[in-house]
Parts: sequence; C-alpha cells; structure tokens
Amino acid sequence: MSIRIGIMGYGNLGRGVECAVRQNPDMELKAVFTRRNPEHVNILTKTAKVCHVDEAEAWQDALDVLILCGGSATDLPEQTPRYAGLFNVVDSFDTHARIPEHFAAVDAAAKEGRKTAVISVGWDPGMFSLNRMYANAILPEGKDYTFWGRGVSQGHSDAIRRIPGVKDAKQYTIPVEGALAAVRAGENPELTTRQKHTRECFVVPAEGADTAKIEEEIKTMPNYFADYDTTVHFISQEELERDHGGIPHGGFVLRSGVSGWERENHHLIEYSLKLDSNPEFTASVIAAYARAACRMSAEGIKGCKTVFDIPPAYLSAKSGEELRASIL
Amino acid sequence: MSIRIGIMGYGNLGRGVECAVRQNPDMELKAVFTRRNPEHVNILTKTAKVCHVDEAEAWQDALDVLILCGGSATDLPEQTPRYAGLFNVVDSFDTHARIPEHFAAVDAAAKEGRKTAVISVGWDPGMFSLNRMYANAILPEGKDYTFWGRGVSQGHSDAIRRIPGVKDAKQYTIPVEGALAAVRAGENPELTTRQKHTRECFVVPAEGADTAKIEEEIKTMPNYFADYDTTVHFISQEELERDHGGIPHGGFVLRSGVSGWERENHHLIEYSLKLDSNPEFTASVIAAYARAACRMSAEGIKGCKTVFDIPPAYLSAKSGEELRASIL
Repeated sequence: MSIRIGIMGYGNLGRGVECAVRQNPDMELKAVFTRRNPEHVNILTKTAKVCHVDEAEAWQDALDVLILCGGSATDLPEQTPRYAGLFNVVDSFDTHARIPEHFAAVDAAAKEGRKTAVISVGWDPGMFSLNRMYANAILPEGKDYTFWGRGVSQGHSDAIRRIPGVKDAKQYTIPVEGALAAVRAGENPELTTRQKHTRECFVVPAEGADTAKIEEEIKTMPNYFADYDTTVHFISQEELERDHGGIPHGGFVLRSGVSGWERENHHLIEYSLKLDSNPEFTASVIAAYARAACRMSAEGIKGCKTVFDIPPAYLSAKSGEELRASIL
Repeated sequence: MSIRIGIMGYGNLGRGVECAVRQNPDMELKAVFTRRNPEHVNILTKTAKVCHVDEAEAWQDALDVLILCGGSATDLPEQTPRYAGLFNVVDSFDTHARIPEHFAAVDAAAKEGRKTAVISVGWDPGMFSLNRMYANAILPEGKDYTFWGRGVSQGHSDAIRRIPGVKDAKQYTIPVEGALAAVRAGENPELTTRQKHTRECFVVPAEGADTAKIEEEIKTMPNYFADYDTTVHFISQEELERDHGGIPHGGFVLRSGVSGWERENHHLIEYSLKLDSNPEFTASVIAAYARAACRMSAEGIKGCKTVFDIPPAYLSAKSGEELRASIL
C-alpha cells in the first residue's frame, strides 16, 4: 500500500515535494492544502485534491504523512507543533539558532498526539548536518568547514530588492576557491567571513535610478554585505529572467582531522552538493524522510526526531536484505 | 563510565583501533588478544593487557565491546559469529559479495547470545555504503559512481610480490580524472573498468631478474591488471621504503540524478575521502560504531546490525540536545 502524502503550502517547496512524490513509486499525493482559494490553485497531480487549510483536520485518517512547506520565520513555528498533534509530519525548519525551541514544541505536541514528527529536513540543516555529525564522530580531533554556493540566496536577493530604485535582483553566494583549496590541502586555515565567501549581485535598476548609490547601499549593508567582497552588476529585466531564472545552490562540508599515536596522519572528509534547484532537492530529501516518518509511526516511535535520530535504512524503499546485498 | 574496549588481532588495523580509542575520551582500551606469544607483542597503551586469544572468553564481564581486527578472507567468517555470541562486537568484514551470509551467521549468534554485533564497518563498506544509500533514497532517479584511490591496494601489491623475480612492490589504484570530470559535469557516462581507474606499480626486482618479463606478467595478469591501463616502475628497495612507505587511500562516491515534473533539474551529490592511513581511518570509523554498539546493547537491541540500521546520533559522544544545538 502506498504512503499517502499531504502537502501544506504550495510554493516552490510544495511544488518540489509534489514532483518528488511522483518519483517515489511507493508514495501517492492525496491532497494539497492552501491558504488561497483552492479553486485558484492548479496543481500538477491530477489525482490529488486541492483543499483549504481549514479542511486539513478532516484528513487525519486519509494521510500517512503531512509535509509542511511553509517558511521558517513565521509559518513553521506555529504550524509544525499544531499539526504534529494530528498527523505524522515532516518540516524543513531552517533557522539553526531556534532549532532547540522548535524541537521542544514539536516533541511535546507529537507525543501528546501519539504521532511522529521529523523537523529540519533538507540539505542544511539536513544532509550537511548529517555529514558534519558523522565526520565529527569519526575524526574527534579535527576542524569543520562549511561553504555554501555557488547559489542563489533568497534572503540576500530580497534585501537588495528592498533598496529604493531597485526593480529586481538576484544574489549569488560564492565560496572562495583559494579557501577551499587550503582546507583540502590540510592547512586548517582560520577563515574570516570575507575569506570564505564572496557575493555577486545582478540588479535591475528602476528607470532613472542612481546606480552608483544603489551599489554603495548594497556594499555597505550591515550583516548582509558589509563583511563580504561584493560585486554588483546592473542588467536589464530581460537579462535577469534569461540568465538568472533558476534557483541553483549547493556547497561543501569538510572535516580535516588527524589519527595515529602521534596524530601523524591527516584525513580529509568532503561532502558536496551541486543543485540545479534548491527547493526541489530539499523536497527530495523531505520525501525520503516522509517514508522514514511513516515507518517509525508504524513501529510506535512517537515524538520529534531529527536526521540524527533516524536509521539510514528507514529512508529507503528497499528492504534491509536488498540494501545489504546491493549497496553495502 | 568509560566504554571498555578489547581488540582481537594486533596488525595494522588493531594498532589503528588502539590509536582511535585514545582519541575518544569516553573509551578505554582494556585488552589486546593475539595468536602470538603475548610476551612478544608490544602495544602502545601501557594500561592495557596483552593476552592470548584463548583467554578471551574470561573477559566477558570486563569488556563492553570486542573489536575484531582480523582479515575478511579467513579470520572474520569464523571469528565474528564465534565472538558475537559472547561479546558485543564490531568487525570490518569487507568481502562485499559475502556480506549476506556473514550477516546471517553473525545475526544468529548474536541473538542467541543476546549481544549486539555491527559488521562491515569502515569506509567501503561503511561510509561509502552510507553515502550510496542516502543519495539513492534522496534521488531515486539517477546513476551511482564509486571511484577508489589514489591509494595503495594491498591485494594488488601482494599479487605483484608473488611474481618470480620480484623482491617487493607497491601498487596504487588511481581514478581517471576525465571520467570523474564527466560524472561531475552530469554527463552520466557509461564507464568500462579501464575508463574508471589506472594502476601504477612500483617494483623492486631481485638481483639479475628479467624486468621486461616481470612487467609483461604484471600487465597481463587476469582480473588484477589485464583490464586496466597499468604503468610499471622499477625502483630500488631504498626508494620503495623512502617514497612508498605509507598506506594512503581514499576515493569518491557520486550520485548524479534528476528532479522536477519533467526531470528537468540535475543534481550532483559527491562524497570523498583523502586518507593518509587506510587502516587508521577504518579504525576511526570502527571506534565510533563501537560506541553505537555499546549504546544499542544497553538499550536491549540485539542481533547483527550494519551502518544502515544505526541512528547517526549513536556514533557521537554528544547528547541529542548538544547535537541539535551545535551541529544540526
């Protein structure tokens, strides 16, 4: 029997989950819940229903896992604890600093409702976290490095768009090649913010806007750009849409460590992602963890879990026997 | 209280485990078991005992985990089932094709003895397997690639040393850069054995040996070299010891896959290792899984497990709370 999936929220991530579910033959999308008028929301899966969020509770017996595709700033802190009491849920809560409180709220709700919740699923937090954890456990003496990009940062693009005189913008975060090379060479460098990443901005100015002033405002913006070497390109709306329409991202997690009685041997563990679509890859990770949530629930494992708590095999549609024979 | 570790077999891997245990403050090496005369075996840890293998059974209450450091060809198929009935054990059984039967034998013994066994721990099988599994679960539509090297293959070095007229030899397995580049570019190439790896041999000829004949014998050796582009260098024993004394290894696991309604977006997941010491890195992975074995045993989880079955957090000395706050 298929794993019956519901999606809460139909933006880039929700659409990504819809596509990911279609790639997993043991899953079936049953419903998409939206705050908009369901009649105005067109989804790709002809066999699934579009419903208003207010109808979600009625679907408790018809879904195995509800995937929460809202934003981390305001949606998920409210939605995940709420729905974790009613459904097995998976979210991609990505505000690293607030994970402990989010975990506590979701854990209480899921235990109360006797459901299984998995939070902070995606690639960072998610696969990058897993790789940091495994690498730290294997090489207890070493140094961690995470680089992001080359990829589009939604938050930084938004920050540029809020500057007066800016019509549209896309911002790319780019790892500094020399810094990556130094880490790979085992040099264990201490890297400042500026030494790790550069920022490249493609900006469409409004007609008659003062581009020198915009560039200055971007480059001196605290937190977002002031601590980085930032390049600004002014381009037309057509160029932006033609050359910068995608949402690529990726990055690198490295651990450089030592072993041996005298710590004389060096080892480098490196994990990297190169993604054409940030939301679709996040959605693909979520789909695998939805399978895990469904299995854990069936086994009576209740409460909130993260990627650290879940046996890898629970993500796979293959049996333990198949995995041992084909992939181990 | 420390995790009390025993080591069975004191070769390169056993010594590596000894070093790894020292790097983990929550572990303590209690005993090393050897088939040799214990008086002739000098270990590095002054607080641990060296005992003959025949004494091992008497240590049942004094060890939390016994780490089996024998070879996969003849030692482990006999040792792991035997000791899994008496101790929590971890091994690095690496004959991929025979894992299912090894698993069955160890599982039966461990269940009978109510112990926890973890088999096939290391980097391949081990971390490479984990990365293949995670990447397959995330990107169900895609293609897997594993490249090994640059590193020393013990089996191939031994094969060369068996040729008459060869005094000593080291063989390096080297991934073909162009093949790796094609995979990273998303070309999904079909690669033959010859297209994936080359082999480089450093050979010390016996005095007066016919080097042309040795080179011919190496290059045409079935299974080991005939299917590869092989380079042979003749060097002196001094050069071999000076330049090729280490046991480095490593490699790459890649999955190239697609997402999107029309499979229009491409993603690349890459995991790589660059290791100064193959046995010490394997030992470092084993030490982390010994911690997991000890925890699972304490929780009443019995029988044989692999890296696929074990929640990542069980490998870490940190608590779930610490991991969520610092690494997730």
